[in-house]
Amino acid sequence: MNRYVLGLDFGTLSGRALLVDVATGEEVSCGVENYAHGVLCQTLPDGTVLPPECALQHPGDYLEVLGQVVRRVLDESGIQPEQIIGIGMDFTACTLLPVDRQGQPLCFRPEFASRSHAYVSLWKDHTARRYTEKIQKIAEETDPDCLIPYGGRMFEEWMIPKCYGILQEDPEIYDAAWRIMEAGNWLIYLLTGREVVSPYTASFKAMWQPGRGYPSNAFFRALDPRMADFVNEKLGGADIVYQESIRAGVLSEAGAALVGLCPGTPVAIPLTDAHAALPGAGITQPGKLMLIMGTSFCHIMLSEKFCSVPGMMGIIRDGLIQGYYCYEGGQTSGGDHLDWFVNTCIPEAYKQEASRRGISVHQLLRDKVIGQQPGQSGLLALDWFNGNRSILLDSNLSGLILGCTLTTLPEEIYRALVEASVFGTRRIVDALTEHGVEIECLCAAGGIARKDEMMMQILADVVNRPVQIAGSHQAPALGAAVFAAVAAGRDNGGYESIETAAAALGRLSSVTYLPDPRRAVQYNRLYNEYRKLYDYFGTGQNNVMKELKKIQEEALHE
Amino acid sequence: MNRYVLGLDFGTLSGRALLVDVATGEEVSCGVENYAHGVLCQTLPDGTVLPPECALQHPGDYLEVLGQVVRRVLDESGIQPEQIIGIGMDFTACTLLPVDRQGQPLCFRPEFASRSHAYVSLWKDHTARRYTEKIQKIAEETDPDCLIPYGGRMFEEWMIPKCYGILQEDPEIYDAAWRIMEAGNWLIYLLTGREVVSPYTASFKAMWQPGRGYPSNAFFRALDPRMADFVNEKLGGADIVYQESIRAGVLSEAGAALVGLCPGTPVAIPLTDAHAALPGAGITQPGKLMLIMGTSFCHIMLSEKFCSVPGMMGIIRDGLIQGYYCYEGGQTSGGDHLDWFVNTCIPEAYKQEASRRGISVHQLLRDKVIGQQPGQSGLLALDWFNGNRSILLDSNLSGLILGCTLTTLPEEIYRALVEASVFGTRRIVDALTEHGVEIECLCAAGGIARKDEMMMQILADVVNRPVQIAGSHQAPALGAAVFAAVAAGRDNGGYESIETAAAALGRLSSVTYLPDPRRAVQYNRLYNEYRKLYDYFGTGQNNVMKELKKIQEEALHE
Repeated sequence: MNRYVLGLDFGTLSGRALLVDVATGEEVSCGVENYAHGVLCQTLPDGTVLPPECALQHPGDYLEVLGQVVRRVLDESGIQPEQIIGIGMDFTACTLLPVDRQGQPLCFRPEFASRSHAYVSLWKDHTARRYTEKIQKIAEETDPDCLIPYGGRMFEEWMIPKCYGILQEDPEIYDAAWRIMEAGNWLIYLLTGREVVSPYTASFKAMWQPGRGYPSNAFFRALDPRMADFVNEKLGGADIVYQESIRAGVLSEAGAALVGLCPGTPVAIPLTDAHAALPGAGITQPGKLMLIMGTSFCHIMLSEKFCSVPGMMGIIRDGLIQGYYCYEGGQTSGGDHLDWFVNTCIPEAYKQEASRRGISVHQLLRDKVIGQQPGQSGLLALDWFNGNRSILLDSNLSGLILGCTLTTLPEEIYRALVEASVFGTRRIVDALTEHGVEIECLCAAGGIARKDEMMMQILADVVNRPVQIAGSHQAPALGAAVFAAVAAGRDNGGYESIETAAAALGRLSSVTYLPDPRRAVQYNRLYNEYRKLYDYFGTGQNNVMKELKKIQEEALHE
Repeated sequence: MNRYVLGLDFGTLSGRALLVDVATGEEVSCGVENYAHGVLCQTLPDGTVLPPECALQHPGDYLEVLGQVVRRVLDESGIQPEQIIGIGMDFTACTLLPVDRQGQPLCFRPEFASRSHAYVSLWKDHTARRYTEKIQKIAEETDPDCLIPYGGRMFEEWMIPKCYGILQEDPEIYDAAWRIMEAGNWLIYLLTGREVVSPYTASFKAMWQPGRGYPSNAFFRALDPRMADFVNEKLGGADIVYQESIRAGVLSEAGAALVGLCPGTPVAIPLTDAHAALPGAGITQPGKLMLIMGTSFCHIMLSEKFCSVPGMMGIIRDGLIQGYYCYEGGQTSGGDHLDWFVNTCIPEAYKQEASRRGISVHQLLRDKVIGQQPGQSGLLALDWFNGNRSILLDSNLSGLILGCTLTTLPEEIYRALVEASVFGTRRIVDALTEHGVEIECLCAAGGIARKDEMMMQILADVVNRPVQIAGSHQAPALGAAVFAAVAAGRDNGGYESIETAAAALGRLSSVTYLPDPRRAVQYNRLYNEYRKLYDYFGTGQNNVMKELKKIQEEALHE
C-alpha cells in the first residue's frame, strides 16, 4: 500500500490540496477552490461599506475549501483515507480572526455580521497604518529589543497593530473575542481540537521570539491599559506557542469528519505560505534566496548568522529550520503593476494581435521587447505602485516612470516595469549581502517564475547569479506536504526531519537561468541609476510621494 | 470700394492666407493648404534616408501654397486684386534654405536632389546639436557679448549652428549656395525682387542685434576659417537687415504673377509665426504674456526693460515693436505628449465611449477629470517628453510620471500631463517675474486655447492670473495682416503704426479664464513639488535622464 501526505495551501484568492507520494515525491493529485467571497475590499457580504485600504475575508470560505478539495483529490486519485499518513498546511499571514470560546468566528454571529472587525483581516489589510507610528514609539520606549529581529520597525500588516486597531475601532468585538487567531492556527484548532500557536507565524508576524516570547507587558500596558494582559487574554499565552515538534496534533473526530480523512492522522504546525516554498523546492540550507513571484514578491532565505539587515521584515532564529536564522523580505507589487499596466494602458491593436496569435497580452508585450538590449528604451521605473515593503517599509511611496519621449512604446514601458520589479529584488539581495548574508544563487517559484522567461533572464542578469526554478507548480503546497511527512514520523512511513523530507519530496525544475556577463555589466549601470532614485525618493531626500498622498487625501475629503 | 489686407501664415504643416477688411478687421476669407511633402523626417522625396533628428521641408510646397491659396480666397470672397492694399507674412523660424544667384533652392537642381543639406532645414531640425557645445565655447572666447540676449546660450535650432553643420557635412552645398536664407526672407525675395533680411528673425535666430550686428568676424574665423566672411558671403552682409520701415518692398511683376495680385502692392517684412500672434491679438504693450499653445508652446512678451532672464530663448530690443524688448521662451512639448498618450496608452473602451458620444478621446478624458480637485489623483509629471527649451535649454531631458498606484486611471495620467505642460509655463512665468519682467495676465492662442477649457482653467489657477483668449482662430495670420496694413500706409487706407493697426484689426475673444483663489493655493503646493523635481533632474543634481539617453545610444549602436 502506497502512502501519501497531504499539503494544504491557503493563498490570497484560493485554497488547494496537494496529494504527494511520500516515498517518491510524485504529485498524485491537486485540487484548487477559489474563495467564494474572494477578498472583501468594498463591502461586507451584507452590503456594509468598508473603509479604504480594508482587505477582509470570510472564514466560511476556508471551511468550504477544506470540506471540498480534500475529498475531491481523494476521489480523483482513488486513494483511500487510510493511505494519508500526514497533513501539512500553509496559510497567508498575518491573516487573523476573532473567535469565541467554541472556536466560532465572531462574524458568524448575526449580531456581528455587519462589523468589519468580526471578519478575517487579510495579510494585506492596511487599516492599522494610522496606529503604527504610535506603536513604534511605545515599543522603542518600553521594549526596544522586541524590534531587533524586524529591522527596528513595526509594520501595519502585523498582529499587534491589527489587534490594537480592533480595540480602538470596535471594542465590543475585541471584548467578545475569546481569542484573536492566525487563520492557520484556527484551522489546526478545528482539525485537531488543540489550541496551538505556530512559532513560524508568531515569530514573523506577532513579534514572538524564541527564548524571549512576546513583547513585554510594559509595552502592552503603555499601548492601552485594556491590553495589559493581551497575550494571555487574546493569544492564549506565550506557553502555547508550539515548539516541541513538527506535529501539532492528530485529526480529532470532528476534524476528520470535516475533511473526510481518518481520525488520528497526524497534522503539522502551519507555515506561512511563502515560507513553505523553501522546503517545497528542497531548500533547507543557507546560500539560496527563495523568491516567490506573484502579484507581490516575497524573499526568504536561511543563514547561520544573525546579520542586522535594515528593512528586512523579519530575521528569526529557528524561523523555519532549526539551527538557522530565517530572513524574510518583500515587494508589495511584483506582478501587480504589470497587470495594472495591461489593464489600464494597452490599446486595442495589441489585444487583437495577442488574440490573433493565441497568446496573452503580457506574452505579446514580452515578445516585442525580449530582444532589446538593457537600456535600449531609455526608460527607468520604480516599482512602488503599492508602496515599498523591503527595504523602506513605507506604504506611502508610489510608482514612477522616467525617460518617456514622444516615441516611447507601450511594450517599452512594460519592460521597464518588469525591470523595476527585478531592480527591487536586487536592492534586497544587495542589502542582505552587504550586511553579511551570502547568496550563491536564487530559486524562484510562483506564476511569473514558470511563465515569464524574459523576467527570469533579466533577474539572472541583474542579480548576476544563477536563478533556479522550483520544480513544483505548487511549491508552497509541496512544502506543506514536506511538513506533513515529518509530522507523520519515520516510523509511519514519513521522515525524521525536515531536511530529509525536503530532500525526498522537494524539487527544482531542470531550468536554470544563467547571467550573461555583458548584460550584467549594462544592467549594473541602469541599477546604479535606479538606486539613486530609490534613495532620493525613498529615504527622505525628497518626500514628494508622501506629500502627494497627503494632498490627495485632503482633496478627497473636501 | 472696401480695402483689404492679406496675411500669409506659413506654419509647420500648412500655409494659409487670411483676407481682412482693413477698416473693420473682419476676417473675410481664409484658405489653408497642407504642404504636399509635410515634414521630411525619414527620407527625401527620392528615397534617400535621412539621419536621426532631421526635420526638412520641400521649398516647392511653399510656392504651391502661394500660388493656390491667395487665388482661392479671392475667388471665394469675390474681392478683386486691386482691393488688396498690402501683404504681410509670418513664417516658422529658424527655417532656412540654400539658394543660388537666381533665388532657386539648391534642392531644385537634379544634381543636389539627394543631398539633405540642399533642402529646407525646418526650425525643429536638431542635427546641429553635436556642434553647439563647440560653437558655444568659441563664442564665449571670441565674442561673449553676442550671447547676452540669448540667456548666454547657443541653441542648435538657430542659424549659425545649422550653417556650420552644412559646411562640415556637405561643403559642396555650402560652396554652391549664393545665400542661406530664412524661408520667409526667400519668399519676400521672390515676391518683391528685393533681398531683405527681416530683423525680427535675424535677431532671434541669427544672433544679429540692432546697433551691433552679427557676431564678430573673429568668432566666425575661429569657428572655421572657411566661414571668416560668412556674413557677407552667405547672409548678404549686415547692411541688408532691413530697419527702415515695415514695408520691405512692393510686388514685382514676377511676384504679382506668382500670387495673382497687382504689381506694386506693398509687402511687409516677414515675422516669426509665433510672434505674429501678438499683434493678431491686439497686443503691442508690455504686461501681457502671449502663449501660443499647440504641439509645442511658445511664450512671447514685451517689456520696457532688459532683464537678464536665464533660459529665455531671446531678449531682443525692437524685436517686434519699436521701443520694447521682446522676450521669447518655449516648451518643446505642450500638446505633443497629450497626443502621444492618447495614441499610445488608451484602451479601446475609451475610444468606443468617445465615438458613441461623438467627441474626441481628448475631450472624453477631460470630461472624466475636469471636476477633480488639484492633487486628487496623487500624480505629478514632468513635461520634458521632447526635452526642455526654456528654462533649461536641454534636449536630453525626458518625461516623467510620478505617483502611480495600482488604481491610477488613464484620465488621471492625462490630467497630470496637462498639468505638467501648465507647470512648465508657470516656470517660465516665474523666471520672467523673478527677474523683473512684470506680467499682469496671459493671452493664449492656438488650438488648445480654443478647445481645451480644462487646460485653460488650470493655466489660470496655476499662474494665478487671468488668461485671455485670442479672438481670431488665425492669430498669427491676423498679425501678419496687421503688418500688411502698416506696409500699405495710412495714405493708402492702411495704418501709420503697428500699434494703431493692431488696435483696429487685432482682437481678443470675450472669454477670460479667471483664477480660483482656493485652487491657486492648492496648485501652489503641487507646483512646489514640480519645481523640486524640475531642479533635481534639470540642473545636474541627478543626471539620470542624460545617462539613460547615453546608455540608450550605446545600446542602439551595438
